[in-house]
Amino acid sequence: MERDLPDRDQAIPDIVIRRLPIYRRGLRHLLDEGRLTISSNDLADEIGVTAAQIRRDLSYFGRFGKQGKGYDVPTLVDAVQQILKIDRRWDVALVGFGHLGQAIADYRGFEPSSFRISAIFDRSPNRIGQVSAHGVEVQAEGDIATLVRRAGIRMGIVAVPADQAQEVTDLLLEGGIEAILNYAPVTLRVPEGVWVREIDPISLMQSMTFYLDADDPPGRSGSIADVAGA
Amino acid sequence: MERDLPDRDQAIPDIVIRRLPIYRRGLRHLLDEGRLTISSNDLADEIGVTAAQIRRDLSYFGRFGKQGKGYDVPTLVDAVQQILKIDRRWDVALVGFGHLGQAIADYRGFEPSSFRISAIFDRSPNRIGQVSAHGVEVQAEGDIATLVRRAGIRMGIVAVPADQAQEVTDLLLEGGIEAILNYAPVTLRVPEGVWVREIDPISLMQSMTFYLDADDPPGRSGSIADVAGA
Repeated sequence: MERDLPDRDQAIPDIVIRRLPIYRRGLRHLLDEGRLTISSNDLADEIGVTAAQIRRDLSYFGRFGKQGKGYDVPTLVDAVQQILKIDRRWDVALVGFGHLGQAIADYRGFEPSSFRISAIFDRSPNRIGQVSAHGVEVQAEGDIATLVRRAGIRMGIVAVPADQAQEVTDLLLEGGIEAILNYAPVTLRVPEGVWVREIDPISLMQSMTFYLDADDPPGRSGSIADVAGA
Repeated sequence: MERDLPDRDQAIPDIVIRRLPIYRRGLRHLLDEGRLTISSNDLADEIGVTAAQIRRDLSYFGRFGKQGKGYDVPTLVDAVQQILKIDRRWDVALVGFGHLGQAIADYRGFEPSSFRISAIFDRSPNRIGQVSAHGVEVQAEGDIATLVRRAGIRMGIVAVPADQAQEVTDLLLEGGIEAILNYAPVTLRVPEGVWVREIDPISLMQSMTFYLDADDPPGRSGSIADVAGA
């Protein structure tokens, strides 16, 4: 039996959805450079996938390119943002205000995005009552379910130690959270219909060592040394 | 022209390499549960891809499954680890010892991995000389190139603010670093032959909002509330 998992949306493979943010970033970059139209080959180069891949992926959502004219960049940016539903503001609850949580609360990548960390929670009495750089006060972990539900927050970020991650996840779920970004190195258990994506630095690093020449003696690094003029 | 980018290794698409760490994690999980053999369908379910995908991906590296017997788990784990070259220790230089850098230095996911943060750098005089939880002393950013080269370190992690990320990247490159995990929300410029992977929380969150029902009024969350018994 052939299928793409997870299959909550039979029609559109999740891998396509995961590529759309990358398309959007490339398109925004083109817009910032003042490009209003782009050929499918140039767009493919900008994004780092094939033109055929882009066509296939976008075909799930309608017809975007014009024969012989390529893509209209502003139209395609708007379309992708609408598809991803990031043409609106999404409030996010951050759990954990240790080093990692504070780094996330300060993360400059959120500023131009549609995501706002509008609630922060921690279990440590020392941290409860602290205020983030963006003016959000840290509240008690025990109040997660009540406060998240009251504020209608539907996305959460788990930034607590691994052994507390499931516990705070359960509180987020109790509050009605439907999507979780997990920084803890554990697999969270969530019910059907709730989405989890993981920040997984180890997998990313493992996917780079493949390319490193394992037989290089330490201290020698070939072409890079040449590039750096060392 | 059809090709997978980046095409530094023509034979094996990068997307296949990026999936191998996920296969490895699933296989390790099976091993922890005492499973020594597994059918290709059960392995597919465990990992969350199709059996055909696994077969295609693994076919780049040899023949692993046995007709009618499925996969031998320990053999496949070993093979994937060898392919990824994570059957050995890799030293890593971490740049940035603010909140994010401290969180990375403490990250428990590194412990069972083949990666060791064996050098830490920062530009702040207050942080230079501090010692991480794992006993690594923070050194001056200006010494990156010399110390990284001397130690033969080939992988780096960039955990500095966005506006300093390129500068420290250039120092890492000068020291001979060949692969970088970038936490800063900027695209790093590196020469051909150097690999960069990004920690990109925004893209991951954008790939979840697609699935959220945008018309839900705040405070109501359907099946999840039912699951949580709220």
